[in-house]
Amino acid sequence: MSARQSGLSEDLGRIVGRDHVLTERERLLPYGHDESDLGDHLPEIVVRPRTAGEIAQVLKLCGNLGVPVTPSAARSGKSGGSLPVRGGVALSMERFDRILEIRREDLVGRAEAGVVTGDYMKAVEAVGLFYPPDPASLAFCTLGGNVAENAGGPRALKYGVTREYILGLEVVLPTGEILRVGKQTIKGVAGFDLTALFVGSEGLLGIVTEITTKLLPLPREVQTALCLFRDTAEASRAVSAVLAEGVLPRALEFIDDVAIAASAVARAPYQFPPGCGAAVLAEVDGNVPEACAREIERVGSVCERHGAIDVLLAQNESQRRDLWETRRRISINLKALHPLKISEDVAVPRSRIPDLVAEVQAIGRRLGLAVACYGHAGDGNLHANVLYDRPEERPRVDEAVADLLRAAIRLGGTITGEHGVGLAKKEFLELEQGKDVVALERRLKAFFDPAGILNPGKMFPGA
Amino acid sequence: MSARQSGLSEDLGRIVGRDHVLTERERLLPYGHDESDLGDHLPEIVVRPRTAGEIAQVLKLCGNLGVPVTPSAARSGKSGGSLPVRGGVALSMERFDRILEIRREDLVGRAEAGVVTGDYMKAVEAVGLFYPPDPASLAFCTLGGNVAENAGGPRALKYGVTREYILGLEVVLPTGEILRVGKQTIKGVAGFDLTALFVGSEGLLGIVTEITTKLLPLPREVQTALCLFRDTAEASRAVSAVLAEGVLPRALEFIDDVAIAASAVARAPYQFPPGCGAAVLAEVDGNVPEACAREIERVGSVCERHGAIDVLLAQNESQRRDLWETRRRISINLKALHPLKISEDVAVPRSRIPDLVAEVQAIGRRLGLAVACYGHAGDGNLHANVLYDRPEERPRVDEAVADLLRAAIRLGGTITGEHGVGLAKKEFLELEQGKDVVALERRLKAFFDPAGILNPGKMFPGA
Repeated sequence: MSARQSGLSEDLGRIVGRDHVLTERERLLPYGHDESDLGDHLPEIVVRPRTAGEIAQVLKLCGNLGVPVTPSAARSGKSGGSLPVRGGVALSMERFDRILEIRREDLVGRAEAGVVTGDYMKAVEAVGLFYPPDPASLAFCTLGGNVAENAGGPRALKYGVTREYILGLEVVLPTGEILRVGKQTIKGVAGFDLTALFVGSEGLLGIVTEITTKLLPLPREVQTALCLFRDTAEASRAVSAVLAEGVLPRALEFIDDVAIAASAVARAPYQFPPGCGAAVLAEVDGNVPEACAREIERVGSVCERHGAIDVLLAQNESQRRDLWETRRRISINLKALHPLKISEDVAVPRSRIPDLVAEVQAIGRRLGLAVACYGHAGDGNLHANVLYDRPEERPRVDEAVADLLRAAIRLGGTITGEHGVGLAKKEFLELEQGKDVVALERRLKAFFDPAGILNPGKMFPGA
Repeated sequence: MSARQSGLSEDLGRIVGRDHVLTERERLLPYGHDESDLGDHLPEIVVRPRTAGEIAQVLKLCGNLGVPVTPSAARSGKSGGSLPVRGGVALSMERFDRILEIRREDLVGRAEAGVVTGDYMKAVEAVGLFYPPDPASLAFCTLGGNVAENAGGPRALKYGVTREYILGLEVVLPTGEILRVGKQTIKGVAGFDLTALFVGSEGLLGIVTEITTKLLPLPREVQTALCLFRDTAEASRAVSAVLAEGVLPRALEFIDDVAIAASAVARAPYQFPPGCGAAVLAEVDGNVPEACAREIERVGSVCERHGAIDVLLAQNESQRRDLWETRRRISINLKALHPLKISEDVAVPRSRIPDLVAEVQAIGRRLGLAVACYGHAGDGNLHANVLYDRPEERPRVDEAVADLLRAAIRLGGTITGEHGVGLAKKEFLELEQGKDVVALERRLKAFFDPAGILNPGKMFPGA
């Protein structure tokens, strides 16, 4: 332990209690990596505050000393947003774990930032309400992490992303000021929309401690169908066709041949039949069973018109769960084909999905790499995963990723649909937004964080 | 014309063309008032640019001279946001009137800021798509004004407000910089959400010139019902009960006894029967006729359980239009009872609607003023209108308004659900948000507009 680390950890212990300051290497390890495959970046110290007041004191102390502070939640992010790339302090939100209230009549809930998203969903559903954002990591990711990254998920197609559900926040600014922004009502336009500015700010502008969310009545009916295709071109055109038909499923997920092969090797709960080279997983919801049945049939018949070889309707909750489990595990199952991968999440205008799938395949062929393509095709947000076997292949993989990001921008899209810029894509932000917008964002960062201590090394080129 | 006015108008003429610089008093008059009843505030000059580049030059010129610039659209706002309270230049967006594209397959549209909202809706619906935000002024208000104020409307209950539909903006900063922020895709989280920060910023942070919106498939079915009650207490409890039942109508509007009386005097298209002292206008939508029928029946039966004396289902489009026309005209019809009024738009958590209605009536009784209460009760956003006959009564009216705003905050609500702070409520912003949040908003304003020229005198206490 360095002298700085030792003095700082004592000061931090006085703020949060000595049990909540970690300095032993083994205990620091988990805080040094996330789901991004961007390597290990250990903090010097982990601090686990319990209150906004404690966070304020930690930030003031670190601000005075110029010590970097990186907010840390479930570390399930894919863009490296929670990696302490400059060392310093990892500020873990794990003790902010209480659901504060669910006001059924108001359709509003309030929770601390470290509450696991899936736990919040369950608590809300237990009283007949619905919190739609459903990132694949919902069993372990947290509401605070979702706010920081503006997380999406399959249901974003119909219900929008995290941003659409955040009414108000308690947030600690890098300077140690504690603010309550936003509102507790469904509508409200007083002042600037500071809440929206903090959502998706990737932990650069402040640390969110408490979250007020809008809730919806829980739809009483859900119908799920898996549409099987011979190849990805047919399946991707079917996605566009379903939307053009005026149907708005709550989810419309695309699964390509590589993802299907991985599901076979990894023995996923659902096994795709031989001859199936792509699939579309669709789900509709509502309150009237006949209406849902009618809508899912429409989806099926559009898919059949576009070449589907089979349309399977989930007959019960257990079949439905198997289909979704198969979809959710794709990311992990791909490692059964190749041990290493880079997971991208570009988004393009919906009509360009077939072009994007074709571009991804061309990039893979040119560089001799397996690329899996799956995800939220309904809203144009595809997860392209570049697979590889040995670390030495990484430069070629990085070339594929760069090509993919450029292709997305060329098609009118974005380098990140839901994972965020973080460490992974900071060198590409200007390519999408241009120098002027990024310059304004840098100035805004400095406005909120003049000492530059909060989550440094992220989002901006050269940061 | 003053010397300053004369020199400035020549310089402005060189930027936008002499025909688009107005200085004669008669031509300035319309730019001096809006729908807020906050009096006339004439600009010294009106300028009507055609391009973002021209706006940039106007802002740079005025910035150098310290001349205030107030953005002006349809001036249908109710909070005085477009009033040139410091004189100077009114910058009219009326020539930004082109719909640029509607990309059906992508469910995305793009228009200039001065396009009338209703025209945009119609163009979008003509290709089978749907732009949900529906402020009562949709026949003349503009998309740019809607973005500035983050406009709502009845359908916000199910579909959310303007903010939820804005993907990207072209905006001219007060310093003359032209930026394109946001995205053209449904999803996208690259960088900070600058788009959301400009939405609802009331013309204080920049001038929006072009707007990219998300669109939805147009629901194929709409069903509308008017539920009649004996009194407001029953009707307001029915609103809460409908939502608690798990139904999410696209609109759920409350109409009180005073609004009903005004509709009678003004011969509204629909005439409420004798004995009817309150009403709830409900509308559901979807793609399957039976499902819509089932949902609207549910609304009707919940209302009947809560004392409705009658439930009328609109049998055709013309009956439906009459009901909505009656609802939309309330604001104007109230002047048939009393020539003067102040229109408020507080919002409270939905379960507090009955309390708010009771508070409004108590305030009216205490001060001896007629108060009408109607609007978007489904999302807790009520329009309370304080009616009066003579300007001398204004101090009492202002007292009623102040009491109402305080009551809304006490009930956990906001001083403005959709109209904005503007000139009307700037002295109340701190009451809702606290000094620290307002201080941050002031600093943010100075960050974007160091010379303080853009829409001065608005939003902040003492501004």
